[in-house]
Amino acid sequence: MSLPVPDRPLLAVLRGELRDPPPVWFMRQAGRYLPEYRALRADKGGFLDLCYDPEAAAEVTLQPIRRFGFDGAILFSDILVVPHALGQNLWFEAGEGPRLDPPLQNGLLDGLQGMPERLQPIYATVSRVVADLPPTATMLGFAGSPWTVATYMVAGRGSKDQAPARRLAYRDPVAFARLVDAIVDLTVDYLCGQIDAGVHAVQLFDSWAGSLAPEQFRRWVVEPNARIVAALRARRPGTPVIGFPKGAGAKLVDYVAGVTPDAVGLDETVDPAWADATLPAGLPVQGNLDPLALITGGDALARAVAAIRAAFPVRPHIFNLGHGILPDTPLSHVEQALAMVRA
Amino acid sequence: MSLPVPDRPLLAVLRGELRDPPPVWFMRQAGRYLPEYRALRADKGGFLDLCYDPEAAAEVTLQPIRRFGFDGAILFSDILVVPHALGQNLWFEAGEGPRLDPPLQNGLLDGLQGMPERLQPIYATVSRVVADLPPTATMLGFAGSPWTVATYMVAGRGSKDQAPARRLAYRDPVAFARLVDAIVDLTVDYLCGQIDAGVHAVQLFDSWAGSLAPEQFRRWVVEPNARIVAALRARRPGTPVIGFPKGAGAKLVDYVAGVTPDAVGLDETVDPAWADATLPAGLPVQGNLDPLALITGGDALARAVAAIRAAFPVRPHIFNLGHGILPDTPLSHVEQALAMVRA
Repeated sequence: MSLPVPDRPLLAVLRGELRDPPPVWFMRQAGRYLPEYRALRADKGGFLDLCYDPEAAAEVTLQPIRRFGFDGAILFSDILVVPHALGQNLWFEAGEGPRLDPPLQNGLLDGLQGMPERLQPIYATVSRVVADLPPTATMLGFAGSPWTVATYMVAGRGSKDQAPARRLAYRDPVAFARLVDAIVDLTVDYLCGQIDAGVHAVQLFDSWAGSLAPEQFRRWVVEPNARIVAALRARRPGTPVIGFPKGAGAKLVDYVAGVTPDAVGLDETVDPAWADATLPAGLPVQGNLDPLALITGGDALARAVAAIRAAFPVRPHIFNLGHGILPDTPLSHVEQALAMVRA
Repeated sequence: MSLPVPDRPLLAVLRGELRDPPPVWFMRQAGRYLPEYRALRADKGGFLDLCYDPEAAAEVTLQPIRRFGFDGAILFSDILVVPHALGQNLWFEAGEGPRLDPPLQNGLLDGLQGMPERLQPIYATVSRVVADLPPTATMLGFAGSPWTVATYMVAGRGSKDQAPARRLAYRDPVAFARLVDAIVDLTVDYLCGQIDAGVHAVQLFDSWAGSLAPEQFRRWVVEPNARIVAALRARRPGTPVIGFPKGAGAKLVDYVAGVTPDAVGLDETVDPAWADATLPAGLPVQGNLDPLALITGGDALARAVAAIRAAFPVRPHIFNLGHGILPDTPLSHVEQALAMVRA
């Protein structure tokens, strides 16, 4: 007699099943709106220290699951650990954001010494989370998509309209392609490592997909993400990939056709009715509550949740935000949203 | 015997005619990439002083026409003259951008004294430009759309993701609607004033249309722009209106259906083939060269221009950028692009 296999609703939807109510989780970072996260953070020091501390990162990953019973646990980490492992120095300036040094103004990685061992603690985090995860919850790994990661590597920080990387990509597409290729290769290894450590599915965050003109979008968003998806299917078949090209607008259709993700994330500007009418039948979608509707609560939140719930009557759907949760989100609003989704 | 009416190709396209090659102009601000602009600016002082100096502003408006023979002259002004005329103080911090004081954190205009007379110099600018304009050139007036203007009025400056206005719009939609109504009313008067002074067409710039969730987009982008278009049709029939909801993505379709502009501007992230396949037949479109392709020049520029030229075989098209021209654009690249468009 074999043991019953636990049902993970989120994983089931990623494999194409309809679930009503839909599974739900809220986008990263995992717990930054939680008092228990702030307490741990005050104890443990900097954000990056936390990412590389498997015990602490596992705890932060699990905090929202314990409090809200989300269907998905999103790894607590940062997309910039990949440039760090490619050899750039990485730190976070308080109140300002990430810094990568040296900035790769010409896209050249030549002087850098790759340090893939920097990713080892993250695999250890995954193992710890999976060991403690409720059997119905899905463990989600992630990485930044190459275009988005490259925008930080080139500028050495966040940049207005991603102009330094966009200019480089036009000016020297050969050098930029080499940089993107290096990110693709390490990202595939990194996601395989997460899968080997136990994640059930992975998400590719292309946070700055929205700033590219169509030809550039095909070349730097669709093509590299497609290569990652193909490599994962070859090397670790059976692990679903969620693609999330934030801000892609109508080009979401090209993304889905070219990348062939197992599911696609919708940002909060996407009309869910348009997505349902336009995307391939049966393709699971994830999203797309406006984080500001969640901040607002009350009627605005109720209307927004209801509109999303009604939009996908016959399509596999994972309820989520359309963008990362904001640190000043009231916990009672998260509870209100969850109650409505699960009603 | 009557005098021949001069043909203005851009105006003809706005009225639905096909022209090959298409008329062309490059988005504002008018001349900021030109040495003759920088010389005049050094002479005349601040940006806002220039906007309110009819002689200087007319000169700046005409500079690109003289140098390149563009088919359209875009009024040299700023979208924030409307908040200034609603009574906020307005100035530009060097290297930082606009400041409006007091910021309308609750959306309330109550303490402000409206000063519509602040707009008079702009009408004088229009009259001067029209008097000096070549008879084949079209004079384009413009205003910011209410949502975009409100984002600055609420935050008192540019703001990351337009968060202050987006939060207010969710939190207190009644107060926010009153602010938007006030902007709508003054904008209609302002555009009527521009039309009376001689502009042949007007453009509504909704630069931050891309940050709104669908319901918010309908309420704060589609509905107010629709009211402006309807009011202009009633009060000044026959003057075409170009709507430009930057970043609207797939919601461009809802914008066109709801606002019913005479033409629609496409930002550089829109795939022109998608636009041509999706927008109503015969609707004139304007755009949408990536300003960074123009900066790059060479093959990248040639490919980008060719793709746009090929995308609208049977649709009235005005060639333009998809976003404002960048100050460091080489003049030789502008010449290259124009030669290709006109070939």
